[in-house]
Amino acid sequence: MHYSNTYTRKLVEQYREISLLNKTKALLDWDLNVNLPSKASEARAAQMAQLTALTTDRWLDTKFRLLLEKVNEQKDKLNDHEKAMMRNLNWSAKYYYHVPKELIVEFSKTTSEAFMAWQQAKKDNNFKLFLPHLSKVIKLNQLVAQHLGFTDNPYDALLDQFEQGLTTRQCKTMFDHVRRELKKLLTYIQKSKYYRESLDLVGEKHHYSLKRQRQLSQFALKKMGYDLDAGHFSESPHPFTMNIHRLDVRITTWYDRHDPRPSLMATIHEAGHALYEQGISEEYDVTPLDSGVSLGIHESQSRFWENQVGRNPVFLYFLTPVLQAFFPEQLADVHEEEITRLFNLVQPSLTRVEADEVTYNLHVALRFELEEALINNKIKPNDLSEIWKVKMKEYIGVVPTTDREGVLQDVHWSYGVFGYFPTYTLGNLYAAQFTRTMKKELPLDELLRRGDLGTVLSWLRENIYQYGSLYWPDELVQRVTGEKLNASYLIDYLNHKYRAIYT
Amino acid sequence: MHYSNTYTRKLVEQYREISLLNKTKALLDWDLNVNLPSKASEARAAQMAQLTALTTDRWLDTKFRLLLEKVNEQKDKLNDHEKAMMRNLNWSAKYYYHVPKELIVEFSKTTSEAFMAWQQAKKDNNFKLFLPHLSKVIKLNQLVAQHLGFTDNPYDALLDQFEQGLTTRQCKTMFDHVRRELKKLLTYIQKSKYYRESLDLVGEKHHYSLKRQRQLSQFALKKMGYDLDAGHFSESPHPFTMNIHRLDVRITTWYDRHDPRPSLMATIHEAGHALYEQGISEEYDVTPLDSGVSLGIHESQSRFWENQVGRNPVFLYFLTPVLQAFFPEQLADVHEEEITRLFNLVQPSLTRVEADEVTYNLHVALRFELEEALINNKIKPNDLSEIWKVKMKEYIGVVPTTDREGVLQDVHWSYGVFGYFPTYTLGNLYAAQFTRTMKKELPLDELLRRGDLGTVLSWLRENIYQYGSLYWPDELVQRVTGEKLNASYLIDYLNHKYRAIYT
Repeated sequence: MHYSNTYTRKLVEQYREISLLNKTKALLDWDLNVNLPSKASEARAAQMAQLTALTTDRWLDTKFRLLLEKVNEQKDKLNDHEKAMMRNLNWSAKYYYHVPKELIVEFSKTTSEAFMAWQQAKKDNNFKLFLPHLSKVIKLNQLVAQHLGFTDNPYDALLDQFEQGLTTRQCKTMFDHVRRELKKLLTYIQKSKYYRESLDLVGEKHHYSLKRQRQLSQFALKKMGYDLDAGHFSESPHPFTMNIHRLDVRITTWYDRHDPRPSLMATIHEAGHALYEQGISEEYDVTPLDSGVSLGIHESQSRFWENQVGRNPVFLYFLTPVLQAFFPEQLADVHEEEITRLFNLVQPSLTRVEADEVTYNLHVALRFELEEALINNKIKPNDLSEIWKVKMKEYIGVVPTTDREGVLQDVHWSYGVFGYFPTYTLGNLYAAQFTRTMKKELPLDELLRRGDLGTVLSWLRENIYQYGSLYWPDELVQRVTGEKLNASYLIDYLNHKYRAIYT
Repeated sequence: MHYSNTYTRKLVEQYREISLLNKTKALLDWDLNVNLPSKASEARAAQMAQLTALTTDRWLDTKFRLLLEKVNEQKDKLNDHEKAMMRNLNWSAKYYYHVPKELIVEFSKTTSEAFMAWQQAKKDNNFKLFLPHLSKVIKLNQLVAQHLGFTDNPYDALLDQFEQGLTTRQCKTMFDHVRRELKKLLTYIQKSKYYRESLDLVGEKHHYSLKRQRQLSQFALKKMGYDLDAGHFSESPHPFTMNIHRLDVRITTWYDRHDPRPSLMATIHEAGHALYEQGISEEYDVTPLDSGVSLGIHESQSRFWENQVGRNPVFLYFLTPVLQAFFPEQLADVHEEEITRLFNLVQPSLTRVEADEVTYNLHVALRFELEEALINNKIKPNDLSEIWKVKMKEYIGVVPTTDREGVLQDVHWSYGVFGYFPTYTLGNLYAAQFTRTMKKELPLDELLRRGDLGTVLSWLRENIYQYGSLYWPDELVQRVTGEKLNASYLIDYLNHKYRAIYT
């Protein structure tokens, strides 16, 4: 990395301390989800709290702030890398400099308790246990939004924490469009003669060996080019990716002994996140450019690999003999077309994480609307359980009979996280738009049909991964695709794909 | 915990920060040995270095030092817990306050490089690659010893780092006694008609399923009372225990597909360490009393469980049907007596970690003598390879043909660790002495014969574990056994046991 002055160099050196602490925190977090013995939760929470305090202290350190201001003053003289680093530092610093430390501490304490209450509430299917915590989390988020500042809507301040510059207005336009079009597509699919409520190949009466499923995942990881010498693959209650360092990007999956799809699809999804991190330019290591730029762009990569590759009929054509080799008893006589339908089953369902490509974004739309309404006091937390049911009926056409499968299903609010959900749909939009560009430059279907994922990975590294956080999402999309984010590409893609499958 | 004044309370509160950092470092260390992808070593080293620096800063922090001095001044007014905490803090602080920070940094840098050189040297069987690093490590240890201070021998200062108050003089007396007696016993055994060079039940042509071995280890852990909800059991290249917190004590083992003994014995050994940590009084959590008091006492517990329990003929009598159930093909027709001989095979061997109970301490004696001579410049590192061979011939009766199996076999020196080895033999001595007392209070053989390990664990918790670092080794041994450390108990135990097996 070339520095145009010693202040910037010093600033990045000081930031290195923050970055290293964050990497250690990431390891503790990964370990918590994979290895931590049940009795050690409190002990681990104390370790995490210490690291958070150490990080906060470093952001608030006077020398660091002065250095930051000094470099900000000479912004115009910086080179492009430095400008990007300063933009990222200022964006991250906002939280520490605008939100009072007492509020940060209260937020952290409240969400620790809220998470435990949510776990209990979900277990007992009792929303009331979670309600007071949720109300407090909403209040604190409203306060945080006030401190962070916004022009139109306090929810904007929260959205920006997860996707730089994202606004409520943009989300509204996006979700209106997506909802309208996907509702139409869903109605079409449900009328198709191929529409199925259930499938013969998976479920209770089938047994897919876990060992074979693990091997299948490992096959997929190898094909994708996930570097196990710079990563780690294991199992956890919920699949996730943890980026500890470019050379230590860990993923997990889960297993269902009655169905090989959840493990394979989760593996491909998480490996998509991981390939992004593993592909970032080495010279950005331990600088403010060293990781994926936003949640939306990150999700675009997990979803690209999961859907545009993993669920692509031409890739499933390639994968069919592999699946048959791993599960001959169940799949030896099954035709590619049936495999394609198996992996692309569309069906209104109650839970977001199990939703198909078509209904998934309807689940997200619902959450966006509820969050925006809650932050603006348009609805009351007390009414959430009922509103959830009404909206589910309206958007997806099914209604949960329990809160466990309804308003309590997602962990996000108990973590104190508001404004995160929309990035899931953003990811799907980016993925579709990137794919359209990729198809102009690569014979994607040909490559997938013969399982050549290396060429696909090279394109992504070249065009997206290497840049890490150098370009913010808007700029990245513009550079890669030549235009702004456009929801039509997702709609076109889904219509084209699913109207072919559900002829 | 009751505090007699606010200064002590404040001091322990400040120490909490050091303790939490150490726990995080312990997790990073465990992860490094179990999960770390190969390409991430440098990245991990940077995280570790940061935590070491943060810990050192806290020890050197002016407020902390002043507080420490203040409480030291009123030592006489403290209660027993406080006195023990102050004694431990002063003992730990010595290193930070006496050794200059530059030397600490150089030591850390030198040993990082020495470790890598040792790995390569061992791989290539080329002692010369390691020699310059070893020479430097010795020089730095000599410097550290000068800074720490000593009365008789610089090696005393190094010994004290691992076992409070241990001296070269004590070690000499101990090893002279042990060497003389064990040499006699070994000669006796080698003349016995039961003496065997090799065994029919294990080795190349046998296959012991790894899955079954894992289950056998899990059976042993359950029997011993190792709490998996406050621990974690997995595999690593070298078995070890990592104490992250009383409620997060992790162990690993290794597997040999041709022999079920290494995995079972390593599991029992490491679980012995873990039971000690898991049994410490809850009120000591995150204070200077919250872990095992010394390496010697720690090793006494791993060796107690491994040898006095695991290799005890009466316990093997209980274990035989279990082994037969896990490995019917290999062991169904094997008599208890043969199982006993299998687990208690005495045989001069080249490597310490594979040595039996009788020859093990001869390996340690050799290392003690070499270390003491090196630190006092009585021998030169250049001559080590040859001296090693001569001493092996003299002490154990076998001579390594390669340095890989000779002077390069142990990792310790490459870590910069001098003065550690004697604690292995100390552990064996303590274990034998504790067992003698236990036998006065418990019908140990009866209990082991029926596999009742719970009663044994209760006795150890009651008499040793709960106290954590409250009593230093000398005091603990005196309290538990009513006398000072006495090497005769180990000699008596080994003579009694092995003269019965090798009649």
